[in-house]
Amino acid sequence: MNPRLPSPRILLGPGPSSVSPAVLQSAATAPIGYLDPELFELLESVRNDLRLLFGTSNAFTIPLTGTGMAGMECCLANLIEPGDRVVIGVNGFFGGRMVEIARRLGAEVTQVDAEWGTPLEAGMFLPALKSSSPVKVVACVHAETSTGVETSIAPIAELAHSNGALFLADAVTSLGGMPVECDKWSVDACYSATQKCVGAPPGLSPITISDRAMAAMEGRSKGASHWYYDWKLLRGYYDAPHAYHHTVPINLYYTLAAALNEIKTEGLEERFRRYREVSAQLLNGLEEIGVLPFAAEKCRLPSLNTVVIPDSVTDEAGLRSALLREYGIEIGGGLGALKGKIWRIGTMGAAATPRNIVLLLAALRLLLKR
Amino acid sequence: MNPRLPSPRILLGPGPSSVSPAVLQSAATAPIGYLDPELFELLESVRNDLRLLFGTSNAFTIPLTGTGMAGMECCLANLIEPGDRVVIGVNGFFGGRMVEIARRLGAEVTQVDAEWGTPLEAGMFLPALKSSSPVKVVACVHAETSTGVETSIAPIAELAHSNGALFLADAVTSLGGMPVECDKWSVDACYSATQKCVGAPPGLSPITISDRAMAAMEGRSKGASHWYYDWKLLRGYYDAPHAYHHTVPINLYYTLAAALNEIKTEGLEERFRRYREVSAQLLNGLEEIGVLPFAAEKCRLPSLNTVVIPDSVTDEAGLRSALLREYGIEIGGGLGALKGKIWRIGTMGAAATPRNIVLLLAALRLLLKR
Repeated sequence: MNPRLPSPRILLGPGPSSVSPAVLQSAATAPIGYLDPELFELLESVRNDLRLLFGTSNAFTIPLTGTGMAGMECCLANLIEPGDRVVIGVNGFFGGRMVEIARRLGAEVTQVDAEWGTPLEAGMFLPALKSSSPVKVVACVHAETSTGVETSIAPIAELAHSNGALFLADAVTSLGGMPVECDKWSVDACYSATQKCVGAPPGLSPITISDRAMAAMEGRSKGASHWYYDWKLLRGYYDAPHAYHHTVPINLYYTLAAALNEIKTEGLEERFRRYREVSAQLLNGLEEIGVLPFAAEKCRLPSLNTVVIPDSVTDEAGLRSALLREYGIEIGGGLGALKGKIWRIGTMGAAATPRNIVLLLAALRLLLKR
Repeated sequence: MNPRLPSPRILLGPGPSSVSPAVLQSAATAPIGYLDPELFELLESVRNDLRLLFGTSNAFTIPLTGTGMAGMECCLANLIEPGDRVVIGVNGFFGGRMVEIARRLGAEVTQVDAEWGTPLEAGMFLPALKSSSPVKVVACVHAETSTGVETSIAPIAELAHSNGALFLADAVTSLGGMPVECDKWSVDACYSATQKCVGAPPGLSPITISDRAMAAMEGRSKGASHWYYDWKLLRGYYDAPHAYHHTVPINLYYTLAAALNEIKTEGLEERFRRYREVSAQLLNGLEEIGVLPFAAEKCRLPSLNTVVIPDSVTDEAGLRSALLREYGIEIGGGLGALKGKIWRIGTMGAAATPRNIVLLLAALRLLLKR
């Protein structure tokens, strides 16, 4: 009578990534109540570890209930009031999503475009910031999951601040996989997700908010239209004396605590190095079978590798499907304008091991010959 | 180096409730991707089982990412446009939350009050519905978690419809614990949670939306301000051909599938009977030690028992704290106006067993004597 268990998978797509046995097993810990003193002990430790990953001392650093996209909407909804001017860099699918959500919130959005597959640069933001009316928020994606490209966000944050704007960054595919330094880079608000480089299952979105961003939210002329993701209400729960807001997903907290613990045991630098090495192994191996990188070397993400689908492949979705069915390996297709043009291969979490790459390369070699 | 495991708890509060070993263990199943064909197989089965619990054939029935409060905001945000007239029944804390969220969304809210601890009645809604401007939505809570009171919602739904309004119900503490008949009662939108009578960990909010409510949302003059909880976008993911929206929390899906499976094995009617019997055992036992029910017998919930704190108890929070510390048993305090006046004792999920009630009664007997 039990539901059928899913087939074993090696998750080398854009996320979720595979989870270690210890993290998985922690999910089966019995739940405790949302006001249990032991929950707040656990939560304090999780919040401290998240500050380490975010490179911040921000008081308001929490695992938001929801996935990375919830983190994106949460940050935009608290920062933006209808009519606010917002400048958003777009060099991939997720930058585009920021624009979409900001417009829904009534923002007057200026979109700063860079070609998909290339990074954004501070200079590109200058014209939008120099126009007559003041800009409230500048935002962009640190690590574009749709293109595998890193943008250096510190110069953009600096430019935003020198023009009186707040700076918001998407760190969904970078947190836990490469340096994220919110304080050093002057990032005012930053959100991520647990199911990529952090190595936990999906369902939580770590966010960190600077005092300056908090003050901006508190100074709004009207409260946020969003209740579930209202920073003030959330702070009321996460900080003592802990007023009830919603029933937090405690079993996901267990997994996040276990994953953060593994990161500390491995060491952040060592983890970054593992991702880089496994990524290099992957790209070298792919080159040997004629599959070349999409993103330029200088801006490539170590966690999410984009490669151009060879012309010889007439049914790329069919090939990915065979890879999943026959070898239990998931890799991702392209999103938006890159659909059918690139593959996205993650080297994140517990899946990022030399053995898995050897298997993937061997399987791809066979499938490409069919 | 592993994070400290929490102490064992018997969760007899207002939720989360304790989870069975099989449901717990399912959480430790390895994740698969958000577009994996096996995920959609699992999801189809979960959606079918949820239709059974909701008593509906609504196509759009899904486990929303988020807890019950996310379900509340999701339903209100899709149904309400700024300026819409909304009539909300309030006989407890959660009716009040509906009002708060609806106002944030720009609704013109008429609040229909009934005394906390008593049910709402259709006649109370009549004046608000008979006024000049048309009402878009009538809403109320089926099972008030703050008072332990059931409201008969069918007559209110009928009245709403005969006045051209949609009807929205909160079934957070009723779904899986007592009959919920969305189709028979003509409920247009209904949300619940997994961590109460359904017997899974917190993190998902089952929702079901009628075609009529969907049509109302599609006929809006302006899209919803909410992106993460937009019904149209969600439907695009949950229905074939399954367009990416967000990375769904697959490990929580495993637990929900396992919990729904247990419900089918136990039988819905049998489960309702178990909750009623355990609730009766609890209330009888409490009466013997001088702790009397708060809600009147005819409207009492079988899943959430409210009792008046005896005058002899000078530190009710301290008593609950001792119960948790010394016996590992969680019960809930009062919310809002009932804080310090009542206790809320859940008889839900795997915690609702005669053995647990015997232990709770014995422990309370000792603690009340101190």
